[in-house]
Amino acid sequence: MRIVSLAEITAALDEGIDMAAVAQSFVDFTRGAVQNMAVGHLRFASSDCHVKGGGVEGAPFFTVKVANDAVIDGATVAHGVVVLCSTVTGKVVALLQDEGQLTAIRTALASAIGARAIARPGARTLGIVGTGNQARLNAQVVARMLGLETILIWGRDAAKAQALAQAVGGQVSTLEQVCAADIIVTSTTAKTPILTRAMVPAGARIIAMGADAPGKQELETALVASAKVICDSKEQCIDHGECGWAVREGLLPASALLELGEVLATSQTFGAQDTVIVDLTGLGAQDHAIASSVWSRLG
Amino acid sequence: MRIVSLAEITAALDEGIDMAAVAQSFVDFTRGAVQNMAVGHLRFASSDCHVKGGGVEGAPFFTVKVANDAVIDGATVAHGVVVLCSTVTGKVVALLQDEGQLTAIRTALASAIGARAIARPGARTLGIVGTGNQARLNAQVVARMLGLETILIWGRDAAKAQALAQAVGGQVSTLEQVCAADIIVTSTTAKTPILTRAMVPAGARIIAMGADAPGKQELETALVASAKVICDSKEQCIDHGECGWAVREGLLPASALLELGEVLATSQTFGAQDTVIVDLTGLGAQDHAIASSVWSRLG
Repeated sequence: MRIVSLAEITAALDEGIDMAAVAQSFVDFTRGAVQNMAVGHLRFASSDCHVKGGGVEGAPFFTVKVANDAVIDGATVAHGVVVLCSTVTGKVVALLQDEGQLTAIRTALASAIGARAIARPGARTLGIVGTGNQARLNAQVVARMLGLETILIWGRDAAKAQALAQAVGGQVSTLEQVCAADIIVTSTTAKTPILTRAMVPAGARIIAMGADAPGKQELETALVASAKVICDSKEQCIDHGECGWAVREGLLPASALLELGEVLATSQTFGAQDTVIVDLTGLGAQDHAIASSVWSRLG
Repeated sequence: MRIVSLAEITAALDEGIDMAAVAQSFVDFTRGAVQNMAVGHLRFASSDCHVKGGGVEGAPFFTVKVANDAVIDGATVAHGVVVLCSTVTGKVVALLQDEGQLTAIRTALASAIGARAIARPGARTLGIVGTGNQARLNAQVVARMLGLETILIWGRDAAKAQALAQAVGGQVSTLEQVCAADIIVTSTTAKTPILTRAMVPAGARIIAMGADAPGKQELETALVASAKVICDSKEQCIDHGECGWAVREGLLPASALLELGEVLATSQTFGAQDTVIVDLTGLGAQDHAIASSVWSRLG
């Protein structure tokens, strides 16, 4: 078993290739070509654990990802590993000590993939809701990949919003300003909605990724019910994603949901007045894609 | 992160203490004191992967177990690791390179725990259905822990049955002889039933552990429907355990199922003519219990 350090992983990242691999994983997932393990959760007073796994018949490796978050002195700290196993022999081939970073990066890449799929032509501004590590990565990757010039930041904690604005070359803004951005990305740990239908203009483009476990919600159900919703996995999103609330309340029929892999495969377009939400719960297939992509360059 | 080799793990095993820890995990699971992660499966042409996780609020560690089986030249080979993480900080503290052995051992201990809970007084003979590594461990641990004098072995492959009989000091037998044993333990990968209601005398005591994933079945549904059934987890057993078939076919009401933790906590007894089945799908709580028990002796 090879142990791969975070430094080696970081050196082996290739944003363009990894993004293409993650985009392909959405398409493969939707067409049923990739196995996506049921999501495992554990939740304790100061930490939680997410386990995801994925693999493709005929590929040399499958992966199991353990990603933990803990809140230490008010800050969220990520830890974790990715286990790579041989699809042929079942042997554990490698342990990637990614400390949760591959999860954070594939999630930011998924934001950019979702944002590209739904952006209106001429999009220039990016609105970021949230101020954590994931919000920072989302701001950097989405702005870079879509060539967005202006980054507007809103967070509950003004000091953290200011720090993030400095880190990514953005500006602290009101929630109203963020909601008027061409692309809005929400990545908070909210358990009650932050964005309401009244705040968000028609035609908004929202990437929501905070709802990755039961009980989390960033968007008012009325906003979700008024929008075209694109899930990474319909099954996972109905179970614990952002749109699950609206579906369970009967405000949004499950039959109206799209899946990101389908939108990517068909290059589907949306009307200028359509509010479009990409609901990201995170797939084992994405973890598998980025781990395989990185591993292929670790020689 | 400490890497613990299989040799270190093996040296740190303590059958009595580990058995008590696993028994306690069933009781804790049933009373809701332990978190048990949703089971993750991946299945490929020559390998499959089971992921389980468990933890207890207030305990120092939680665990995520990756256990893989592959069929190589007709023989099943196990691999895997257990990841220990801090419940407080989320940090990955240790990687136990158990190669699936902690799973095999906690499963054999669960057989012995289940067998003790349901054995008729004066039980002397053990019937083993199956000839793999798990069947060998079950035979050894159950016979030792219950003081059973005679081990009767049946398997589809006569040569493997002979090899197992030699390894454990047992004797190759007919399926009819095995079914007449005081305790019967089935651990095969069967997808169609091996034991039928007609084969098994009233009052039989059966531990069935082959059905650990959807599609597996060792016991005829009529046999299961005629018995008192004790699940490690009602939820998991209904989903993919041995009794799930009978429950889904409407032959056995879910309300009739017992849980092993309840039987252990209340020292429940059974009538001499009751056929009793313990249905073991395997709990993340058990993996957590044995990994924590072993880790506590690794210094």
